[in-house]
Amino acid sequence: MGVFVGVAGLVAMAAVLWAAYSTWSVVRHSQGTDRMKEIQHYIRDGAYAFMLEEARVMAISMLIVGGVLGILFYWEVMVAFWIGSILSMAAGFVGMNAATLANGRTTEAARSSFKKALNVAFSGGTAMGMGVAGLALGGLALVIWLFRGDFAPETIGIETKTILGIPGADVNFIKAAIIVSAYSAGASLVALFDRVGGGIYTKAADMAADMVGKVELQLPEDDPRNPATIADNVGDNVGDVGGLGADLLESFIASIISVAIIGMYLYVGDIGEGEGIRQLIARYGVDIQEITSYWWMLLMPMLYVSGGIVSTLIAFAYIRLSRAQENMQPVLMNGTRIAAVLTVGLAALTTWLSPTNFVPFWCMLLGVASGIGIGFVSEYFTSSSYKPTQQLAESYQSGAAVGVTEGMAVGMMSSLWPCLIIGAAMVITYQVGGLLGTAFGALGMLSFVGMTVSVDSYGPIADNASGIATMSELDPSVRERTDALDAIGNTTAAIGKGFAIGSAAFAALALIAAYLWSAVGAAVDVTVPNIPLIGRTVDHHEVGSLVLAGMIVGGMVTYVFSSLLIRSVSRTANLMVQEIRRQFRENPDIMEGKTTPDYKRCITITASGATRQMVKPSALALGTPLVVGLIFGRFALAGFLVGALISAVVLAIYCANAGGAMDNAKKYVEEGHFGGKNSEAHAAGVTADTVGDPLKDTVGPSLDILIKLMSVVSLLFASLFPLSPFFM
Amino acid sequence: MGVFVGVAGLVAMAAVLWAAYSTWSVVRHSQGTDRMKEIQHYIRDGAYAFMLEEARVMAISMLIVGGVLGILFYWEVMVAFWIGSILSMAAGFVGMNAATLANGRTTEAARSSFKKALNVAFSGGTAMGMGVAGLALGGLALVIWLFRGDFAPETIGIETKTILGIPGADVNFIKAAIIVSAYSAGASLVALFDRVGGGIYTKAADMAADMVGKVELQLPEDDPRNPATIADNVGDNVGDVGGLGADLLESFIASIISVAIIGMYLYVGDIGEGEGIRQLIARYGVDIQEITSYWWMLLMPMLYVSGGIVSTLIAFAYIRLSRAQENMQPVLMNGTRIAAVLTVGLAALTTWLSPTNFVPFWCMLLGVASGIGIGFVSEYFTSSSYKPTQQLAESYQSGAAVGVTEGMAVGMMSSLWPCLIIGAAMVITYQVGGLLGTAFGALGMLSFVGMTVSVDSYGPIADNASGIATMSELDPSVRERTDALDAIGNTTAAIGKGFAIGSAAFAALALIAAYLWSAVGAAVDVTVPNIPLIGRTVDHHEVGSLVLAGMIVGGMVTYVFSSLLIRSVSRTANLMVQEIRRQFRENPDIMEGKTTPDYKRCITITASGATRQMVKPSALALGTPLVVGLIFGRFALAGFLVGALISAVVLAIYCANAGGAMDNAKKYVEEGHFGGKNSEAHAAGVTADTVGDPLKDTVGPSLDILIKLMSVVSLLFASLFPLSPFFM
Repeated sequence: MGVFVGVAGLVAMAAVLWAAYSTWSVVRHSQGTDRMKEIQHYIRDGAYAFMLEEARVMAISMLIVGGVLGILFYWEVMVAFWIGSILSMAAGFVGMNAATLANGRTTEAARSSFKKALNVAFSGGTAMGMGVAGLALGGLALVIWLFRGDFAPETIGIETKTILGIPGADVNFIKAAIIVSAYSAGASLVALFDRVGGGIYTKAADMAADMVGKVELQLPEDDPRNPATIADNVGDNVGDVGGLGADLLESFIASIISVAIIGMYLYVGDIGEGEGIRQLIARYGVDIQEITSYWWMLLMPMLYVSGGIVSTLIAFAYIRLSRAQENMQPVLMNGTRIAAVLTVGLAALTTWLSPTNFVPFWCMLLGVASGIGIGFVSEYFTSSSYKPTQQLAESYQSGAAVGVTEGMAVGMMSSLWPCLIIGAAMVITYQVGGLLGTAFGALGMLSFVGMTVSVDSYGPIADNASGIATMSELDPSVRERTDALDAIGNTTAAIGKGFAIGSAAFAALALIAAYLWSAVGAAVDVTVPNIPLIGRTVDHHEVGSLVLAGMIVGGMVTYVFSSLLIRSVSRTANLMVQEIRRQFRENPDIMEGKTTPDYKRCITITASGATRQMVKPSALALGTPLVVGLIFGRFALAGFLVGALISAVVLAIYCANAGGAMDNAKKYVEEGHFGGKNSEAHAAGVTADTVGDPLKDTVGPSLDILIKLMSVVSLLFASLFPLSPFFM
Repeated sequence: MGVFVGVAGLVAMAAVLWAAYSTWSVVRHSQGTDRMKEIQHYIRDGAYAFMLEEARVMAISMLIVGGVLGILFYWEVMVAFWIGSILSMAAGFVGMNAATLANGRTTEAARSSFKKALNVAFSGGTAMGMGVAGLALGGLALVIWLFRGDFAPETIGIETKTILGIPGADVNFIKAAIIVSAYSAGASLVALFDRVGGGIYTKAADMAADMVGKVELQLPEDDPRNPATIADNVGDNVGDVGGLGADLLESFIASIISVAIIGMYLYVGDIGEGEGIRQLIARYGVDIQEITSYWWMLLMPMLYVSGGIVSTLIAFAYIRLSRAQENMQPVLMNGTRIAAVLTVGLAALTTWLSPTNFVPFWCMLLGVASGIGIGFVSEYFTSSSYKPTQQLAESYQSGAAVGVTEGMAVGMMSSLWPCLIIGAAMVITYQVGGLLGTAFGALGMLSFVGMTVSVDSYGPIADNASGIATMSELDPSVRERTDALDAIGNTTAAIGKGFAIGSAAFAALALIAAYLWSAVGAAVDVTVPNIPLIGRTVDHHEVGSLVLAGMIVGGMVTYVFSSLLIRSVSRTANLMVQEIRRQFRENPDIMEGKTTPDYKRCITITASGATRQMVKPSALALGTPLVVGLIFGRFALAGFLVGALISAVVLAIYCANAGGAMDNAKKYVEEGHFGGKNSEAHAAGVTADTVGDPLKDTVGPSLDILIKLMSVVSLLFASLFPLSPFFM
C-alpha cells in the first residue's frame, strides 16, 4: 500500500512542481508598456479581490459544514472535508494567478513573435492544468496516508455509530468510505461556489459591458472608455479559469473515489445476499477479498491517473520543443493525441503489472474513447466549420427571434449523439465490469485531465491578451496575433468541453452507483417482499412511487437551479448597467477619452453582486438532497439523484451547445458572411449571443457540478437517512 | 356488466347530442355582412382543406399501423385501433367545425350585445368539449361491448400467441388489455398528428404574418392587406381547437384504460409471486378476483367520467341561464367550480353504490385537487396580474436579449410547484391505493374534461372573432367587446392548461405503470438473483445499467423531438415569408388596399408545409420506443419511458409557462406599462413573444402527447419485446 501511495504522491509532487515551474517561466517575461502594466494590475487586483471575497464566504460555509460532519461522524471526516475544500480553493487560485500573470505577458510577447506568445499563454494554461491534477491526486494520497488505519483491510468494515448520542439513532457505514466522500464533497462544494460565483461574475460583466457599451454607445469591444471592460476581463479569469479548474479537479476526485468506495464495499462484501458481489468479483479475475487484491483495486485508479499526469508532462515537452512557428493547431492536437495514447499505454502497463485481468483497462479505454466522441460532437454542432452553425448564421438574416429559436433547436438536437454515447458506454462498461466498470469508465474520461485543463484555460488567457492589446492601444497587428492564438485553441477546447460534460455525467453516475451500493444495499440485491438492509426492512410497495416522485422532483430542481442562475446574472448585470450609465452621465470626459473611467467600482459592484447571488443556488444544491433524504428516505433520494442526472445531462449539453453555436454563428457573420459586421444578421447574432452566453458559461458548467455535488452529498450523508419516509 | 356499459353509452350519447345541439344553436345566428361572410368562408375552407389533407396522411398511417396490429395480434385489435383513430379524428373535426361556424357569428353577435356574443362563442366551445368527452366514452363503451367476450371474467386470462407463425416467437398477454391499448393508441397517434401538424401550422402562419406584416411593413395585427392573416386565423382553428380536442380526448382515454388494464392484471393475478397483488387488493376492501368486483373495478372509471359529463352539462346550464350581463368572469369560474364539485359528488355516490371502499374515490379526489393546484400555478406565472409576468415586462426595457433570458428563467422557475404537486400526488395515491390508485388519480384530473375543453376552445373562437372584426373593418367597439370576451377566458384557460399538463403526466405515468405490470412483471415483484417472468429469466445484473441508459436516451429523445418541431415551424414560416414578400412585390396594389391578396395560396403553402413537416417528429415518437424495445428489451424500454416522462414533464411546463409569460408580459406593455406600444420595451416584448410562441403552442402541447403516445405504444407492443437485449 505504501508503494502505491508513494508513487501517486511523487507524481502529484512532480505535477505541482511543474505548475510552479510554468508559473515561473511566465513571470520571466516582460509585462510591456506602462499602460499595459496598469491594465494587468487592475485585472489581477480585481480577480484577487473577488476570489478572496468568495473565499471568505466559502470559508464560513466550509467551517460550518465541516464542523457538522465532525460532530455527526468523526474528526477524521471533518479533516478530509477541509483538505478537499482547501485544495479546491488552491486549484482555483493557482490557475487564476497563472492566468493573470500570463495575459499581459502574452500580449507583450505577441509584439515580437507568434510562437513566443503561444508559449507564454500555454505555460499559463499548463500551470493550471498541472496544478489541478497534482493537487487532486496529492490530496487524496495525503488523506489515505493520514488515515491509513481506516483504509487498512484488517480494520475496514461496517461500523455502527450512534448519532449525537440519541438512543436508537444508529447508523451503519464504512468509515473509510465516509472519509473519502467527505474529501470529495469538500472539493465539490468549493467547485460549485467557484463555478456559480465565477459564472455569474463573468456573464454579468460581459452582458453589462455589451448592453451599455456596444448597444447603447456603439463602443467597440474592449474599448478602454467602457468602465465595465476591465471587469469583463476579470470575469474571464475568475469564471473561465478559476471556475473551470475547481470543476475539473472535482470531477477528477469524484471519479477516483467512486472506484475506491465501490471497491471497499466489494471487499466488505456484506450487502444483501452477496451473490451478485461474488459474480462481479469473478469478472475481474481476482478475489478482492484477499488483501493484496484489495489494495490493488483501491489504488489502481490512482496509478491510472498518475500515468495520465506523466503522459501529459511528456505531451507538454513535445509542444514546447516543436519547431512549428505559425501553424500551431496541429501541434496542439498532436499534443492531446500523445497525452491520450500514452495515458492508455501506461494504463495497460499498470493493468499488466496488477493481479487483475484487463477488465478495468477496457472500461477505462471506453471512457477515453467516449470522451473524445462527445468532444467531436460538440465541435460539430458549435464550430462554424460545419453546417449547423453556418445554417444558424444564415437564419440570423430573419431577425433575432428566429435566430434565438433556431439556436435553441441546434442545442436541443446536439444532445442526440452525446446521450447515445453515454448510454452505450454505460451499458457496455456495466456488462464488462459491473458498477465498478462504470466507475473505471468515468476515470478514463478524466485520466489526462491535466491536458484538458491546460488547453481549456489557455483560451481565456489568449482572450484576455487580446483585450489588453486593444485597451493599451497597441498596433492592430498585435491583436491579430493574439486573436489567431485564441482561435487555434478552439478545436481542442471544444473537445475539452465534451470531456467536461461527459465526465460529469459519468462521475455523477459512478457516485450515484456508490450511493446505491452503500445506501440502498445495491440496486441488484432487492428481495421480495421486503428489502433487508442492515437490520431494517422497508415495505417494497412504497418504493416504486417514492423513486418516481423523487425523479420528477430531481428533474425539476435542475430547472429551478438554472432559473436562479440566470436571474442572478441579469440582476448583477443590472446593477452594473446602472453604474456604467452613472459614470458616463456624471463624467462626460470619459466618453471623450480624457479621463479613465472608474474601473474599480465596476469590479467591486460585480464582485459583491456575484458573491451575494451565489448563495441561493448553492444552498439549493446542498440543501435539497439533504431535505429529500431526511424527510423522504433513501429510495426517494435515489430517484431524486437519477432524475436530476437525466435532466441535468441533457439540459447541460443543450445549454453548452446552443450557447456555443449562437456565439460562433455570430462570429461567422462577423467574418463577412450574410452581410458581415453591422448588418441586420449581425444585430440578430448579437442578441442571440447575449441570450446564449449565460446558458453556455453560467448554467451549463454549473449543472455539471450540481449533479456531482448532490450525488456526493447524498453519498456522504446516506447513512443518516431513514429507509422509509418519516411519516410512514 | 351490461348495465355499466349501458349507462356509459347513454351518457356518451347525451354528450354527443349536446354537442350537436350546441352546434345547431351556433348555426342559428347570423353570419353578418358580406365581407364577414367572405372571411368566414375563407377560414372555414382553409381549415377544412388542411384537416382533410392531414386526415389523408393520417389515414394511410392508420391503415398501415392497424394492419400490422391485425397481422401480429388479432383482427379485434386492428378494429379497436381504427375505432380509436377515427373517433380522435372526428373529435378534431367536430371542434374545428363548431369553431369555424362560431367565430364570425360571435363577431356579429358582438355588434348587438356582449352577453349574446359570449353565448355564441361558448356554445362553439361546448360543442367541442362535449364532442370530445362523448366520443371518447362512447367509443370505449362500443369497444368493450363489441368484444365483450374477451373482457368477460370467465374467459379473460394470459394468452399465448405465436407471432407470424415463427417457431419460438411466442408472446404472452391479456387479449382484452391489448384491445383497449390499441383503442387508446389509435387515438394517441391521431392526436399527435393533430397537435404536431396543427401546432406547426398555427405558429408558422403566425410567425410569418408577424415577421413580414408587423416587423417589415408595420401593418397592424389582422390587417386585411396581409396575405397571411387568414392563414393565421385558420391556424387557431386547426391548432388550438382541433389539436387541443384530439389531445384531451386521448388523455381522457388513456386515463380510463390504464385503470382497466391494471384491473385486469389484478384479476388474472398471475404475475410474480402474487403476494403484492393480494396485499393491494385487500386495500380496496373487495376481492377483485370475484366476478362482480372485477366488473366494478373495470368499469368504475367509466362511471366516474360519466358523472363528470353529467356535471359538466349542469354547469353549462348554469352558465347559460345566468343573468349577468358584462361581468362574466365569475360566472365562468363558478361554472368550472360547479362542474368540479358535482363530479366529485357523483363519484362519491358511485363509490358508495359500489362494493369497494372509498380508496378509489380518495385517489380520484386528490387528482382533481392536484389539477386545480397546477392550474393555479400556471396562472400565477403567466398572468399579468401577478409579479413574475410584471417583472418580466419590466425587464423588456433592457432589450430583447434580456427579455428572452428572463422569460426562460420564469418558465424554469414555474416548474417548481407543479412537479412537487405531481410528486406528492403520486406518492399519496400510491400509498393509498397502489398503482391502481395512481391511475385513479389521473382519472380524477380528467374527469370533467368536457368543461376544461369547452373553456379552452372558447378562447381561440373569441380570438378569431376579434380578427374577423378587424378584417371586416367593423366599428372598433365590436373589437373591444370581442377582446374583452377573449380576456375573460384567460383565467379559466390557464387552469385548463394546468390540467392538460398535469393530466398528461399522470396519464403517462398510469400507462407506464400498466406497462410495468404487463411487461416487466411489476416493479414490485422483482426477485433475486433472477427475475422470473412468464417462464423466462433475465440476469438482474444487466438490468440496472440498461434502465439507466434507457433513461438518458429517453430524456434526450424529448429534446430531439422538440428540436425537430421548432425547425419545422421555422421552415414552414420561411416558405410563407417568401410567398408574402412575392405577393407584395408582384402586386403593389395589395399594400394600398386596392386588391385583396391571395389568401388561399398562403393557406395552401402552410398546409402542405405543415403536413410534410409533421411526418418526421411523428415517426420519431412512434419509432423510438419500438426500436428500443425490440433491440434493447423491456427493461431498457421501461427506463426509456421514465426518462422521457421526467424530461418531457419539466420541459413541457417550462415551454408552456415561459411562452405564456412572454406573451402576457408583451400584452402588459401594450396596456401602457413601461412605455406602452411602440416603445423599446414593446419591441423587446414582440421578439420575446416570437421566441416563446413555438415553445408554448407547438413544443409544449406536443410533448404532452409524446409521452402518452410512447407509453401506449410500448404497452401495446410490450409482449413482442424480448426481456434482454438481442445481443446478450
